[in-house]
Amino acid sequence: MASSTTAGHAISCKGKPLSFFPSSFDARLLEFIHLRFISIVFSLLIYDDGDDVFDAEAAAVAWEAGKPLVIEQVEVAPPKAMEVRIKIEYTSLCHTDVCFWEAKGQHPLFPRIFGHEAAGIVESVGEGVTDLQVGDRVLPVFTGECKECAHCKSEESNMCDLLRINTERGVMLSDGETRFSKDGTPIYHFLGTSTFSEYTVIHSGCVAKIDPSAPLDKVCILSCGISTGLGAMLNVAKPKRGSSVAVFGLGAVGLAAAEGARIAGASRIIGVDINPNRFEEAKKFGIDEFINPKDHDKPVQEVIVEMTDGGVDRSVECTGNISAMISAFECVHDGWGVAVLVGVPSKDAAFATKPINFLDERTLKGTFFGNYKPRSDLPAVVDMYMKKELELEKFITHRIPFSEINKTFDYMLSGESLRCIVCMDE
Amino acid sequence: MASSTTAGHAISCKGKPLSFFPSSFDARLLEFIHLRFISIVFSLLIYDDGDDVFDAEAAAVAWEAGKPLVIEQVEVAPPKAMEVRIKIEYTSLCHTDVCFWEAKGQHPLFPRIFGHEAAGIVESVGEGVTDLQVGDRVLPVFTGECKECAHCKSEESNMCDLLRINTERGVMLSDGETRFSKDGTPIYHFLGTSTFSEYTVIHSGCVAKIDPSAPLDKVCILSCGISTGLGAMLNVAKPKRGSSVAVFGLGAVGLAAAEGARIAGASRIIGVDINPNRFEEAKKFGIDEFINPKDHDKPVQEVIVEMTDGGVDRSVECTGNISAMISAFECVHDGWGVAVLVGVPSKDAAFATKPINFLDERTLKGTFFGNYKPRSDLPAVVDMYMKKELELEKFITHRIPFSEINKTFDYMLSGESLRCIVCMDE
Repeated sequence: MASSTTAGHAISCKGKPLSFFPSSFDARLLEFIHLRFISIVFSLLIYDDGDDVFDAEAAAVAWEAGKPLVIEQVEVAPPKAMEVRIKIEYTSLCHTDVCFWEAKGQHPLFPRIFGHEAAGIVESVGEGVTDLQVGDRVLPVFTGECKECAHCKSEESNMCDLLRINTERGVMLSDGETRFSKDGTPIYHFLGTSTFSEYTVIHSGCVAKIDPSAPLDKVCILSCGISTGLGAMLNVAKPKRGSSVAVFGLGAVGLAAAEGARIAGASRIIGVDINPNRFEEAKKFGIDEFINPKDHDKPVQEVIVEMTDGGVDRSVECTGNISAMISAFECVHDGWGVAVLVGVPSKDAAFATKPINFLDERTLKGTFFGNYKPRSDLPAVVDMYMKKELELEKFITHRIPFSEINKTFDYMLSGESLRCIVCMDE
Repeated sequence: MASSTTAGHAISCKGKPLSFFPSSFDARLLEFIHLRFISIVFSLLIYDDGDDVFDAEAAAVAWEAGKPLVIEQVEVAPPKAMEVRIKIEYTSLCHTDVCFWEAKGQHPLFPRIFGHEAAGIVESVGEGVTDLQVGDRVLPVFTGECKECAHCKSEESNMCDLLRINTERGVMLSDGETRFSKDGTPIYHFLGTSTFSEYTVIHSGCVAKIDPSAPLDKVCILSCGISTGLGAMLNVAKPKRGSSVAVFGLGAVGLAAAEGARIAGASRIIGVDINPNRFEEAKKFGIDEFINPKDHDKPVQEVIVEMTDGGVDRSVECTGNISAMISAFECVHDGWGVAVLVGVPSKDAAFATKPINFLDERTLKGTFFGNYKPRSDLPAVVDMYMKKELELEKFITHRIPFSEINKTFDYMLSGESLRCIVCMDE
């Protein structure tokens, strides 16, 4: 590849052109051409099954905690057994990236390439990979599906024993080494995905093959946050048509939960957030009743119970604040109420409530990635979007070229964005 | 009625014979005759729809908290609108009776007639009662089903708004008065059932009509504890065939939960109790692995997680001890584990756990009366017994005449009995 993005960071790839499209091409036309000719292009290029190290690919490297990422030319080793190397087309920032980039309270692991919400195209496959081929359009996922363990074989769980999320590991599972390096210095992976890089190497069990006609600049946001909120509602809370629902936290995950409630036919969706600026945006997601807990002199669960004559049918908690978690549980109706926890609290937080709240036939469940099995279930979520049942455009508030990736941190930290699409080829 | 029980307490009833059978009759023959001729007998007696006060019926009256019950001759007023008067045939003692008889921590309400686990025959019906007739064989239940409220109309709830359990109320719902009195002194009801009396008046919404061929001296235990444990497992925990299950507390409710696990086809049922004397009895219920938390120097949930390679698939907590509740939740497998709380803890107890235990896809639910709707669902539970799917005999460890009812308190308090059948006509 010998091209430059609109942002001007020069990148090259050991003599083999990977993209014939000037970076200024209209993105939609690019998508169209990818769709029609991707397999022909890849076959013409005659890949050597990923034996090559990509000498210098653009990657946004976090050298230190909390410091701006630096776009560097890094080496990307070929995929080993059961791995694939993927050309990332679009990526976006998720709160988990920010947490580990800030590294407050976690073990700092730097230099590291963050990013786990993305879409791309398989560039090469390692030994033993049979269900992915060069040219496949895929979503990398921060957790995987080996299809062999008790969790993968269970209808109820998506917490694969082998490929379950591991925030501490910065190396590949097979050999404990990184596939990224710069001038001989290893650069750590993040969540097994590291999508803030033009090329990345991922375990094939963490890659969902999707409808090749799906626009990657939209469905990329399904590889983490949006699916997490959507699945929490559709797969776990499961409101019936006509149900009342409360959503705690109106960031992207919470709004995805609201989107799930809308799709399920909920008749009443109540949004709870301490930031009133989010209320206007939330209206697009079917939320037309808002509660700011700061506006009340009693616990928000009591406010909800009063306004719903006993509580909502379902609630989903997407903040990770322990008080919100307790409120989300205590605001559901006795007899049938189900509350679902999504947000991750601090390690020392304790969930505490009176047992009678359970005995009065309330249910409390937690979910991880909306209970979606990445490889088995994500293609159907993409299909929901393609059938226009799921509206993804509402979540995309910004779009920037890769060279400006640090802006997406600013947008998120200021609460300005829901999702900012980072275009790798612009 | 002019007869005396074998216990010798004389009772009479305003001139109308209600039983032609000498009290020494073999109970099984009595059952048979009841079955075949009950409607004929009642029709011959030409009831006057319950207008009569029964002047002096045998009832075991609790005059003071914690003091032995006294068998007294009490007046039993006729049923008012939507009420029925029932001749209790068999009753048994449940922990809830003991709690309110001891009245430690509750508002004391005396004199009172306890008892809520029983079986009997409808003697007369009040105005407006259409689905029960004189002669119907029934289970009185401490909670009801109006079939009109949101809970009754919900498929998920059995917590009827109108007739939900109320431990504080000692009077009838319709007029705030008691139907029991002695020499003009009102005697309070308990749980709307007061089955420690030959005749009692109950709201018709708290009465389940059952198969007239069912032996009342067996199915009487289905009107509270056994259904509670059984339903907690079958209706709420819902183990799949081959599941592993833990049951906390091996009293009658816990063993009924184990019976549910056996019926559901669980492959492994682990019993947890601090009383090792219960382990032998528990073997009859399919429990062949026992844990006494006192035998271990680590929390019992850790013991269970180790012995089951990650946790049990389902657990049911039947002690009401807050530590056991937390253990029961934390011992279920991540990804799919479901814990169900049955036992009622002290008012000040707080359930506390780390939120990650939920986020790792564990579910915690509470249940009330095993989620059975009394009128709609209990007939089918009786049918399970009649089809020999449910084994009730295992629960019945003692049988005594009504005159010796205080013995049943001794049996329960000493942990000697599971269920002691009190025979009203012996």
